[in-house]
Order: sequence, then C-alpha cells, then structure tokens
Amino acid sequence: MASKSKKNYDLKATKDLLSQHLKIGQQKKELKFPEDTIKIEDLSVKNTISRINELIDKLVQTIYNTGRPSIELPSRSGSNIIWDEENDLLLLGKQIVEKQFHSLASVGDITRLMKVLENVYELLKTNDYATKREIFYTAVRLFKDQKNSDKSIEDISTMLYTTRNSTHIIAAPRGACVGKLRIRDGTEIIDLERQGSGYWQVSTMLDEIDIIESDAEFILVIEKDAAMMRLNKHKFWKKYPSILITAQGVGNVAVRMFLKRLSKELNLPVFSLVDSDPYGHYIHSVYLRGSKRLSYESPFLATPNIKLLGVLTKDLDEYKIPEEARIPMNSNDIKRIKDMLNEKFVKKNKKWEADLNLALKLKIKAEIQAFTSHGFNFLADKYLPTKLTTGDWI
Amino acid sequence: MASKSKKNYDLKATKDLLSQHLKIGQQKKELKFPEDTIKIEDLSVKNTISRINELIDKLVQTIYNTGRPSIELPSRSGSNIIWDEENDLLLLGKQIVEKQFHSLASVGDITRLMKVLENVYELLKTNDYATKREIFYTAVRLFKDQKNSDKSIEDISTMLYTTRNSTHIIAAPRGACVGKLRIRDGTEIIDLERQGSGYWQVSTMLDEIDIIESDAEFILVIEKDAAMMRLNKHKFWKKYPSILITAQGVGNVAVRMFLKRLSKELNLPVFSLVDSDPYGHYIHSVYLRGSKRLSYESPFLATPNIKLLGVLTKDLDEYKIPEEARIPMNSNDIKRIKDMLNEKFVKKNKKWEADLNLALKLKIKAEIQAFTSHGFNFLADKYLPTKLTTGDWI
Repeated sequence: MASKSKKNYDLKATKDLLSQHLKIGQQKKELKFPEDTIKIEDLSVKNTISRINELIDKLVQTIYNTGRPSIELPSRSGSNIIWDEENDLLLLGKQIVEKQFHSLASVGDITRLMKVLENVYELLKTNDYATKREIFYTAVRLFKDQKNSDKSIEDISTMLYTTRNSTHIIAAPRGACVGKLRIRDGTEIIDLERQGSGYWQVSTMLDEIDIIESDAEFILVIEKDAAMMRLNKHKFWKKYPSILITAQGVGNVAVRMFLKRLSKELNLPVFSLVDSDPYGHYIHSVYLRGSKRLSYESPFLATPNIKLLGVLTKDLDEYKIPEEARIPMNSNDIKRIKDMLNEKFVKKNKKWEADLNLALKLKIKAEIQAFTSHGFNFLADKYLPTKLTTGDWI
Repeated sequence: MASKSKKNYDLKATKDLLSQHLKIGQQKKELKFPEDTIKIEDLSVKNTISRINELIDKLVQTIYNTGRPSIELPSRSGSNIIWDEENDLLLLGKQIVEKQFHSLASVGDITRLMKVLENVYELLKTNDYATKREIFYTAVRLFKDQKNSDKSIEDISTMLYTTRNSTHIIAAPRGACVGKLRIRDGTEIIDLERQGSGYWQVSTMLDEIDIIESDAEFILVIEKDAAMMRLNKHKFWKKYPSILITAQGVGNVAVRMFLKRLSKELNLPVFSLVDSDPYGHYIHSVYLRGSKRLSYESPFLATPNIKLLGVLTKDLDEYKIPEEARIPMNSNDIKRIKDMLNEKFVKKNKKWEADLNLALKLKIKAEIQAFTSHGFNFLADKYLPTKLTTGDWI
C-alpha cells in the first residue's frame, strides 16, 4: 500500500531542475524550415476564403487562356516526406502533383475535390464545422467510399497550403484536459482547476479557443484515461502544479494542436507518460514530430520539446515491477521496435536508442497500470515525483 | 443547404406536448420488484464497509462452527435473469451459487475473490477508486488473466448485494454532457451551460456528483459524438431547453447511472437519438432496461421512461434520405433484428415492433449523419424539432 505521509514536493527545486534540464523558451524562436520544403500556414477563416477565391480565379483564367484547366498540389507520397533534422519535424517537400480537368483518369478525382471545396466554402462562410463522415454524406453517390472523400479533404488542405483545421473539417472530440489552466472557449471562460472529478473535453474547434493563463510548471501528456483519472482524483496537478492532458491513445489532430499551443504560448516543458511498449513509444513520437500521413501539418501539430518521462524499459527494474506484471513481446512488437531503431530521430537520441535496445534485448513490455502492483497510488506518490525531481527522462 | 431563417420553437407547446405524451413523474414512485428477484442496493461507503464486515464475521463464525466455510452469492447465469414486465427491467432471480473454501475446484476462485475484497476494502477506507485493469495488476500472478479478476469483481458486487459503483471499482470515463444543468462535483460547482464548444466529461466517480438544478425540458441521449458536437456548436440545448449526453456508443455504467439519476431527480422525459440500425436500437434498449450481463444493477442503470426518438426506419422515407445514403443490411444485421423482434420488451411495444419489421422488410440501415445529405444542419433545424413537436417517437 502506498505511504500516506510523505514530505512536500519542493516546487522551487523542481522548477530549477526543469529549467536546467530543458531549454525553456526553445519554442519561442521562429522556426526556419529547410529550403526544399513547402510552407503551410494556419489561416483565419477570412484568409482561407481568400485563398479559395484566388484559386478559383486562377482556374477560370486558365480556362479562358488555354481551355485546359488543371489543379496543382504538393505530393503527399512517401518520397516527398522530408525529415527536418534541425527542427526534428516531418515536412512535405516540393514535389507537385497535377490533376487535369480534361483527363479521363482524373475527372472523378477533380469532381470530388470540387465538391469538398464547395463544402469547405459553405462551412467557412457560415462559421460552421463538419466531420469527415458528414462531408462523405453530402454526396454519397459521388464519393462512393469515405476513403475517397477523406483523400479529397487532405488534397484540399495541401492545395490551399493550409492546415485541415483551417478548412473547418474536424475530428470528433477525443481527449481531455484538467489542471492549472484557464481558457476562453467562444464567450465562456473555462477554469480547468474547477472540473471536479471530471475533465474538460478538448474541443476540436480550436479556432474558438484562447489560452488565458496558467500557473503550471509543466504539462503531462498521458496515454491512458485510467492513469489520468487516478492523477486527477488525487489532484496531482495541484500538488505538482501542472496541466494534464490525454487523448486516449494516439493524439488526434485537436489534442496535438492544443498541446502544441499550450507548450508554445505558456512556454512550458512537456512530458509524456505512456505504456512501456513500442506503441507507447510511437505515441510519444507522434507528439514529438508528427505522423507521416499528416506531415504537411507537422509544424502545427508537433511539440518538438516533449520529453519521454516514461514508462521506460529501464524503469521496470529500477521500480521493481514484478515479473508477472511484465508482458512478453510478440513478433509484431519486436518488428516495431526494430523499425523505430531505424528512425533518424531515434538514432539522434542516444538515451532513447539505448532504452529501445534494452527492450529488444529483454523482449518485455509493461503497462502504466503495472505500478499498481506496488499499491494504487505508487504512480502518483512515488514514480512520477521521482522521475520529475531527478530529471530522469529521454 | 439548411434554411437560415426559421420561426422560433414554441416552448410552451412542446412542454405541453411532452407532458401529454409522457407520463411525467412516472419515476417518482418507488419501484416494486417481483417476489422472485433479489434486492440490490446502491450503498454509501460506510454501509458497504459494514456489509463487508458482516460477511467476514459470518465467515469466521462458520469456520468456528463447522470448519467448512463457504460463500454464497446470487447466480448471474442466463437462467437466473428475469424480465420484470411491470417495470420493464432485467433483474436477477434467487438462484444461489455456493463457493466452498475447502473444495479443490473452487479454491482458486475463492482466493481471487478474497484478493478483490481486500482491494475493495482498501479503496473504501481511503475513499479511492480503481479501474478493473488496476485491480488485475494488484495480483497478476493470482489472476493470470483480466477475465478472472473481472469475474471476481462482479462476484463481489453481487455477493454484497450492491452495485459495482458502491465497491469503488469504476470504468475509465467515456461520455460527455452539456446543456441546461448545474452539478456539484466534490467541492466544485460545474455549469454545463458554460462549456464553450467542449463538454463536461461524465465522471465515473458518481458518488461525488450532486445534481443541483436544471431548467431543461428534456434530456437527449446521443449515440454519436459527431452529432453531439453539431448540436452543441449550434447551442441546440439553448434553443430547445435540454441536456445533451453521449457515451460514444453503448452507454457505460457511469453514463447510464448518471442518466438515470438526471431523469429521476429532475423528473424529465428522456429521448434517444441513435443510428437507424440494429446496433443503434440495441444501444437504446440498454438505456431502457439494462444489459443482460449487468442485470443485477438494472434498477440503478436503466431509464425505463426513455423514448426512441429516432432514427427510425420509417424516418428514412419521411425525411427523404436519398437511396445512396442508405446502407444495405448484412446477414449479421438481419440476425440481430430477428433477435430483437423476439425480445418480450419489443413485443410489448407495437410501434417499435412495426419499425423493426419495416427494417427487416427493406433490409436497409442508415447513420445519423445521413441527414447531412440535406445540409449540415438539417438534423438540428428540421429533423429533431419536427420529431419533438409532433410527438413522433417510440
């Protein structure tokens, strides 16, 4: 059972330690991207509408001039995804795809693209939002399969050199936040310290959100709801002034964008708490430098200063996780670890590489909940404070 | 595109209509359960601890008296699940299972049961909560598989003739609520009208929640997050004074218990909005009268006055859902519809039976989002107001 009496956490010391371990303020500087990558912008409603108008004007002009209109957009294929070592981000290169209106091969594609563009225009004009599924249902016969409308939705974002969020096509909410933070959401001020045993569900309409203030010292991203619940129940964020956020698995666009904004606007260090398995490490990597599929949005989604607090493979011995709470890896896990070890951004981080190599050697994994074998509150009372105060992260 | 100008919704008329269509106050009376069913109670922490102490005392007494201790608990097998026609609930009958400490067959079972009992005792004493997964991790070697600890957790609830909630073993939160409602959660007052574009995530620690006040006219339970998001964005609950709640699929214990309490304490009619498919109708039925697996908790989880507002199969023609937005049923869907048609609680409801028979005849289904084929806000501006004001529900 977890000890009930323990000395108070030394806030000053931790703050100093955090400052020392993290280059606080590193996000403040304007990012400079490599020459061979394209520039994507997060746009206001007004500016997105302007871009659509410009695009249509240009199209009409081409019809007048040549009678052979076409649309050009950056390629999202693997060969056009570039790892920006300087900023540790996945970005889109300058390869261009041309879709011709008059070619039989691309006419279906173009018609779908125009339908989505019409939807986006309507959403922006009425300051409304829609999900991908709803976009599919605006023209089922045309799209046939949601895969097709989803592809057109991503085409529209890249074609406009903007984020999907700027097109007002959003995901259903899947993520929660609680702790030392006040935000404005539309006309409401929401105090994330006053959510009782529940949370504020992260809105996917991020245009409407302003971050007002926070006296947190750090942000903790948690893979699992259950761990978040436990830390919130014991008001971990009050004792260790922080903001807790979870996306219930891989961070969706809204959570990643919100986290990025929190980290940047509040200028706070960010830590992740994930399962000690390849999937957990992958979740961390998506927060860190974006996913391949959405690489054109990386600068708005990635939080390059996020640190992997745990659970590390080496923690299993250090915190005496019993043998029976460790799970043997399957062949899929082993393949994933090997894939991760081949990634440049892992090779660059020697501590991370070492921990993945240890996982590969021991062939074991463990969940955050494995700490329960030492008592329900070992995580909150022992593991996290120790990790945070000793600077033991990757 | 949805019409922008429309006449204001007549609140008075709707309120009268709701009162006329629903026996408001029907939940006020104390439920009387059939003689052949057992009585389960939702207990305070103090009373659950008393029950555990009584149980242990009795056990010690038996050891002194006979040396052959055993534990008796109500059977949860299919043959002991009784449909209470009067209250339209699934309940547990009086069949008893006996687990003997001295029998080789049940010794493992008993040891697991005692370990969970120990956990529950600790949780209650420290006013803490744990998830099923955490309980599993308190003794991995003993439980071997989470199936075994899950079974012991349900055994403990039935053994104590109480709800799982009373044992402080809870699910991870999965559900959100917004609208005309104020609650107290621990020491915080939470105003569900002031959640911006987000929601309050329904806490699974329902002990801590008090319902303070509401000027809603009804409660709308929504199967899908995306529909909830759309209605919240347009402040549907403000225009049609209501409380919106979603569980992202089948309602989990917390959402069902919270809904039941809302409906009972606020004395409000409840409607469900689900996909027009067998799974959607099943989701409705779980809110209505509980699931078979948790039948011992039905009286605390079921909302027998909930009405199926839609989407009904007959709505697809009435609201001119285009052919291409309708999905052909597969053999699994057809089997599910046939199974539902055999349920007594469906047979009792002629309108429901007729709609399921129509679905079986047409062999089509449709999602809530299919209304998007008439414009993004057809659901909020046309479908729901029409259904509510004409009393067109099941």
